[in-house]
Amino acid sequence: MTQPSLGSCLSSLRESTPLIHCITNYVAMNSTANVLLAAEASPAMLHATQEVAEFTQLADALSVNIGTLSPPWVEAMQLATHTADTHATPWVLDPVAVGATRYRQTVCADLLAHRPSVIRGNASEILALNGLAHQGRGVDATAATEDALAAAMALAEQHRCVVAMTGERDLVTDGHQYYTINGGHPLMPRVTTLGCALSALVAAFVAATPGKPLLATSAAVASFALAGQRAGATAAGPGSFYVAFLDAVYQLTPDDLSHFAQHEVTHAA
Amino acid sequence: MTQPSLGSCLSSLRESTPLIHCITNYVAMNSTANVLLAAEASPAMLHATQEVAEFTQLADALSVNIGTLSPPWVEAMQLATHTADTHATPWVLDPVAVGATRYRQTVCADLLAHRPSVIRGNASEILALNGLAHQGRGVDATAATEDALAAAMALAEQHRCVVAMTGERDLVTDGHQYYTINGGHPLMPRVTTLGCALSALVAAFVAATPGKPLLATSAAVASFALAGQRAGATAAGPGSFYVAFLDAVYQLTPDDLSHFAQHEVTHAA
Amino acid sequence: MTQPSLGSCLSSLRESTPLIHCITNYVAMNSTANVLLAAEASPAMLHATQEVAEFTQLADALSVNIGTLSPPWVEAMQLATHTADTHATPWVLDPVAVGATRYRQTVCADLLAHRPSVIRGNASEILALNGLAHQGRGVDATAATEDALAAAMALAEQHRCVVAMTGERDLVTDGHQYYTINGGHPLMPRVTTLGCALSALVAAFVAATPGKPLLATSAAVASFALAGQRAGATAAGPGSFYVAFLDAVYQLTPDDLSHFAQHEVTHAA
Repeated sequence: MTQPSLGSCLSSLRESTPLIHCITNYVAMNSTANVLLAAEASPAMLHATQEVAEFTQLADALSVNIGTLSPPWVEAMQLATHTADTHATPWVLDPVAVGATRYRQTVCADLLAHRPSVIRGNASEILALNGLAHQGRGVDATAATEDALAAAMALAEQHRCVVAMTGERDLVTDGHQYYTINGGHPLMPRVTTLGCALSALVAAFVAATPGKPLLATSAAVASFALAGQRAGATAAGPGSFYVAFLDAVYQLTPDDLSHFAQHEVTHAA
Repeated sequence: MTQPSLGSCLSSLRESTPLIHCITNYVAMNSTANVLLAAEASPAMLHATQEVAEFTQLADALSVNIGTLSPPWVEAMQLATHTADTHATPWVLDPVAVGATRYRQTVCADLLAHRPSVIRGNASEILALNGLAHQGRGVDATAATEDALAAAMALAEQHRCVVAMTGERDLVTDGHQYYTINGGHPLMPRVTTLGCALSALVAAFVAATPGKPLLATSAAVASFALAGQRAGATAAGPGSFYVAFLDAVYQLTPDDLSHFAQHEVTHAA
Repeated sequence: MTQPSLGSCLSSLRESTPLIHCITNYVAMNSTANVLLAAEASPAMLHATQEVAEFTQLADALSVNIGTLSPPWVEAMQLATHTADTHATPWVLDPVAVGATRYRQTVCADLLAHRPSVIRGNASEILALNGLAHQGRGVDATAATEDALAAAMALAEQHRCVVAMTGERDLVTDGHQYYTINGGHPLMPRVTTLGCALSALVAAFVAATPGKPLLATSAAVASFALAGQRAGATAAGPGSFYVAFLDAVYQLTPDDLSHFAQHEVTHAA
C-alpha cells in the first residue's frame, strides 16, 4: 500500500477549504488568519463563552494558542476543547511559553485532558510540557531540537496525539515514527507569530485529511519549511520575508510539496 | 442640480482628516488603522466603558465591528452607539458572521436600535441581519450578491440607513436607489479583514460628506474597488497584495475616483 | 572620558538580545513584536494578573502602553510596573492619548508612582502628562515639538526619568541635557503604531546599556529616525514603507548609527 503523499494533503485542503476556529493570542491573530487564507482555509476568530461551543460545532477543526491567555480566554479554551473532544473534531494545542510561569502549566495540564489531536511547539515548550518545567524563558526556543526528540515522542505516546516540534529542523511524531523536515530560513524566527500561524495551519491540514494526523501535520510543517525557503531566497529582511512568505504559501502546489526533498520518515526502534 | 462626484467625497476626506472612533475586532485593528491612515483619516481604538462615551463625543464618526465580541466589548458598543445616536454622530455597523450564532444575532438586534447610518457586510451577513438567520458559516460570503439585493434594500428601508453589501460586485443602497460597483480583485478575500477596514473607511467618508451617506458610502466602496484593482495588477499573492493595496489607497486621487468607470446608479421601481 | 557612542548601544543590544515584557495595546502588538525581533531583541506579550509579576521578574525590561486600556489591563500594568520598580528593572511608559479622557489621566498618574525609567510620547501627550491636560484629540501629535521642550524637561526632572518626545524632530532629555534627532520620513505617521513599537525598542536599548538611559533612549530614537529615512527612500506608500522599515531596522549596523549625522547634544543653561 502506498502512503498518500504530502502533496495530496495540500490538494485535500484546497478542495475542502476547511473552517478553522482559532482561539489564539492577540499578537498572532492577523498573521494566523492571513496564513490560513493564503493556504485556502477559512479562519474564524471568536472566544465569547456565550457562543464558543456553538461555533466549535460548526468548525472543521479548532486551534488553541495560549500566548496572551487570561481567565475569560481560558474558560473559552476549555469550553471549545471540551466540545471538540466530545464531537471528535480535531484540535491543535500551541502551548506558548508553557515553561515560563506556573499559570501556563496549570492551564495546559487542564487542556490536555480534552485530548488534543496535535501539539505544536518549539523544543523548550515540548520539554516543559513533558514535565521538565521552567526550561523556557519566553517564546524562544533555547533547547536543541535533537535533545528534545525523546520528550516529543514520550509526550505523543502519553497523550496519544501527534507532536510537532519546530525549530531549525522540524520533527513530527506520533510516538512510534517521526518525520524529520528541513528547510525554512534563518529569517523565520525574526518574524513574529509564524509558529502560532503554523499551529492553525496544522489544524487545517488535519481537518482536510481525516484519520491521518501524522501525515497531515507533516504536510503542514513541510509547507511552512518550503515556503520559508522560497521566501528567504528573495527577502532583504524580516519585513520583505513575511510578504514573500504569504505569497509563497499561496503559490505552493501539491507537486511542489510532494517533490520537496528535505524530509524523511524514521521508524523508532 | 449636479450630484457631487465620488471624487469630491475623497477631497473632503483629505481636507477634514476626520477622527474615527473604532471599536473593532482584534484581527482587524491593525489593518483598519492602516487603511484609515493611508486614506488620511485619523483612527482611534478604545473601548473601556470608563471612557468610551466621552471619546465618541470627540470623534467625527464611529465604526463598530462585532468580529471578536464578548460582554465587556458589547457593553462598550452599546454605550458608544447610544452616544453616537444621541449626538447625531454618524456610525457604521459591521455585523461580522451575524448568522453564525444566536449571541451575534441578539447583539446586532440591540445595536440596530441605536440607528446606524450605514450597515456594511457581505451577502450572508445582510441576509442574516434581514431575518434570514443562520445563512453564514462564518466570515465568508456564501450567498450570491445579486440574490441578496432585495434583502439589502429591505434592510435599508426598515432601518432608514444605507446598506453596503460587498462581494465580487458591490451594492450600496438607501432602500430607494442603489449604486453597483465593480472592480476589486480575486486576491481581496484572501487577505484578512479588508472588509472590516472598509467599514471604518465608510465611517470616515460619511463623516467627511455630511448629509450624503449614500454617496459617501459609495465613494468609500469605490475607493476600495479601485485600489484593489490596482494592487491586483502587480501582486504575486496575498502578501504583496496587501502592501500594494495600502499604497494604492494612499495614492488614490479624487480624479481617479471620479473617472472610475465601473459604477452605476439605479433607481428602484 | 569619551561618551559611548549611539552605535555601541546597538552593539550591546545585539549581543544581549534582551527579553522585553510588553503590555501594549491590541493595535500595536504585532508591529511591536516585529520591530523588536528585527532589532534582535526578544519580545514577550502577556498580561494575566495570575502571571504578570512572575514574568516581569524574568524580563530584562518592561514596556507599558495604555492605548486600548481597560480595568483588567490596568491592573496588570500596576502589578508589572510595581514589580519592575521593586526589582530595579527598567521600564518605559507610553501614555497614548493621555489628554483625551479623564480615565487615561488617572491611570497614568497611578503608573508614574512606580517610577518609569523613560516616558515616550508625542508632544500632545507630553504636554498633557505635564499637567496641561486635554491637549490631544486622540493619538496624533497636534502640538509643535519645539513648544513642548519645556514640558518634556520639566517632566523628566519631576520624575527623575528620561523623556523622549517624538515627532518631525525628536527630543530626548533627562531634564538637564537633551538630544535633538532629525531624520525619519513623512510616511512614518501614516503607518499605525510605529511610535508604540519605538517605546518597546527604547526598553530594549535601555536594558542593553545599563546605567545610561539618556544615551540608550537616544540610540533607540536615532535607530528609528535612520531606518525611517532609509525606508522612505524607496517606499511608494505606507504599505511598502512598513516593509522597508522592518528591513532597515534589521539591516542597521552600529557603524551606521554612530555615523548618523542628524543628532546633537545640548546642555541646558
